[in-house]
Amino acid sequence: MPLLPPATLRAYVARIFEAAGAPPEDAALVAHHLIEANLQGHDSHGVIRVERYIRDIEAGVLHPGAEVRLDRDDDTTAVVDGGWNFGQVVAHRTMAVAVEKARLRGVGIAVAHRCGHVGRVGAYGEQAADAGCIGIAMVNNHGGGRVMSAPGGLERRLSPNPIVVVLPTEPRFVLDMTTSVVAEGKLRVARNRGESVPDGWIVDAEGRPVTDPAAFYGPPQGSLRPLGGDAAHKGFGLALVVEALAGALSPAGTSRPGAPSVGNGLFCMAIDVARFRPLDDFAATFAALIEYVQSPPYAPGVDHITVPGEPERTSQRTREAAGIPLDDTTWQQLLATGEKLGLPRLEAR
Amino acid sequence: MPLLPPATLRAYVARIFEAAGAPPEDAALVAHHLIEANLQGHDSHGVIRVERYIRDIEAGVLHPGAEVRLDRDDDTTAVVDGGWNFGQVVAHRTMAVAVEKARLRGVGIAVAHRCGHVGRVGAYGEQAADAGCIGIAMVNNHGGGRVMSAPGGLERRLSPNPIVVVLPTEPRFVLDMTTSVVAEGKLRVARNRGESVPDGWIVDAEGRPVTDPAAFYGPPQGSLRPLGGDAAHKGFGLALVVEALAGALSPAGTSRPGAPSVGNGLFCMAIDVARFRPLDDFAATFAALIEYVQSPPYAPGVDHITVPGEPERTSQRTREAAGIPLDDTTWQQLLATGEKLGLPRLEAR
Repeated sequence: MPLLPPATLRAYVARIFEAAGAPPEDAALVAHHLIEANLQGHDSHGVIRVERYIRDIEAGVLHPGAEVRLDRDDDTTAVVDGGWNFGQVVAHRTMAVAVEKARLRGVGIAVAHRCGHVGRVGAYGEQAADAGCIGIAMVNNHGGGRVMSAPGGLERRLSPNPIVVVLPTEPRFVLDMTTSVVAEGKLRVARNRGESVPDGWIVDAEGRPVTDPAAFYGPPQGSLRPLGGDAAHKGFGLALVVEALAGALSPAGTSRPGAPSVGNGLFCMAIDVARFRPLDDFAATFAALIEYVQSPPYAPGVDHITVPGEPERTSQRTREAAGIPLDDTTWQQLLATGEKLGLPRLEAR
Repeated sequence: MPLLPPATLRAYVARIFEAAGAPPEDAALVAHHLIEANLQGHDSHGVIRVERYIRDIEAGVLHPGAEVRLDRDDDTTAVVDGGWNFGQVVAHRTMAVAVEKARLRGVGIAVAHRCGHVGRVGAYGEQAADAGCIGIAMVNNHGGGRVMSAPGGLERRLSPNPIVVVLPTEPRFVLDMTTSVVAEGKLRVARNRGESVPDGWIVDAEGRPVTDPAAFYGPPQGSLRPLGGDAAHKGFGLALVVEALAGALSPAGTSRPGAPSVGNGLFCMAIDVARFRPLDDFAATFAALIEYVQSPPYAPGVDHITVPGEPERTSQRTREAAGIPLDDTTWQQLLATGEKLGLPRLEAR
């Protein structure tokens, strides 16, 4: 398995996007985003995506350099038309608009449509937190990308609809969770390894609980269950909220039959903590809570209680030092993509 | 089991609160809130609470008529000091402040502290929806009221920390869910009936999954699990978000050892849909989504897919016609409370 220094990988990926027509600043932004996802251990949202993005550009679905415009722009709210530019470019701009309004007015909300795949949604919450704001972001799949059934339903009707909340605390609190019980990527990994998945993750095409991930992919297709186990109606409810905010408040549209899976509808919100109380006080109060919930006693076999954002920080430290491990398929696809665009061959460690 | 006409019960409860010193307007508001909870089938948040509120007033913990003040009041944000008035009075005012700001600016957030038990949190989301806004509300228990352990932890460290999202659609979408797998009330009901609870709801004092609700109450005390089943880290993450917004952004404080269980820290947000697109368009988009997710095919034994807000509407229709059934304990307590305050005896149907 090749190990790549982050800076080398980042520069190479940026050159690929530039060669495909992206302005240098946008190419750098998308490359940075993907390498950060790899560093944090979210390989499914990392450079594995490069090959698909280039294919989408070639297919005329993704438009590097497209103008990102504000359809509406008001005191605290905005509607962003991404022009099918890279989702990372559109989402970064959308959260920047929300943050700017929050700094001026206390709260800002911007929604976006015609936006490519935004990648790791947590990144936009972190962007707000960098400005002293609570960052909240949600995405649907622009009406497509259905993987999840309603409780009691047989067909896939909803996309994974993640919810992100990032707090401007030290260390950062980064909640980045799908409203399905897991992200589909975990099923793919299990299937490729020939492993079964825990009870309660998926149902087959007849609605029966199953543990063989192949039953999800079919044919006939099964579906992911909403978050919640016995209380899956709660995950289902949260998924519907994400549709409302990312797909109905924006012009992207909600989940519907036949919608292509082309990108994300996006909801971004920033809340300026200092309008309520000094940021340091807020952070200290929350730090005391984290210390309290993480303190013993622990259940047998447990020696640490993990809070959201922690596993990503650990991965980032390790991979910044040791390099980013890429599986051979991803590595060969990346090299072939670079070669196709006329780039000199990159060597792994 | 006595059956009470809603109007009769509402008037009687309002007179109890007036007799206990509440201004008539506040007494009517709290009575209306409690009877609405009963009508919607949430009896644990209905008139069963009257006896406790009166005891809290007698104990000097709850202050009817106390001034509800704005500690801070800005463009889009406010911090409300409830003066330990009834939670319903404080929360109604807090959401009213958020809605007023949303109507002026597009978005409004108000947080509250020193606020009694707010009751059914969904009511405040509905208040925002009545004004054409998306209403979002979250409460912690002002640092107390701990019932839930962290995944892997043995002690109760968090309150149920509900999240409410209400959409200004017809019919109303009303998500009102605890971030624990269930509300504690369901354990109490199961224990009183001598029934076991589903696997995954509770762990005993040693952290073992158990189904006997007595293990929750102890001694030694067990705990509720966060929402999520295998993915309980997600419910845990959501519960921490509620602490941040309701307990750290407000001066109420987050969950901590030794905090008394006296009321709620509160986060209220209103988003004016019309700043993004016409309200009718938003509602039509969401209605199409609901039709889609509710349509067949269904799993064996399923003939309807329930969406948030539906069971409450069904209960409301039934009980408005037939009356509100009260269990004998609640009924006798209510009569005794009225008698203690010098009210004439109320007769049930």
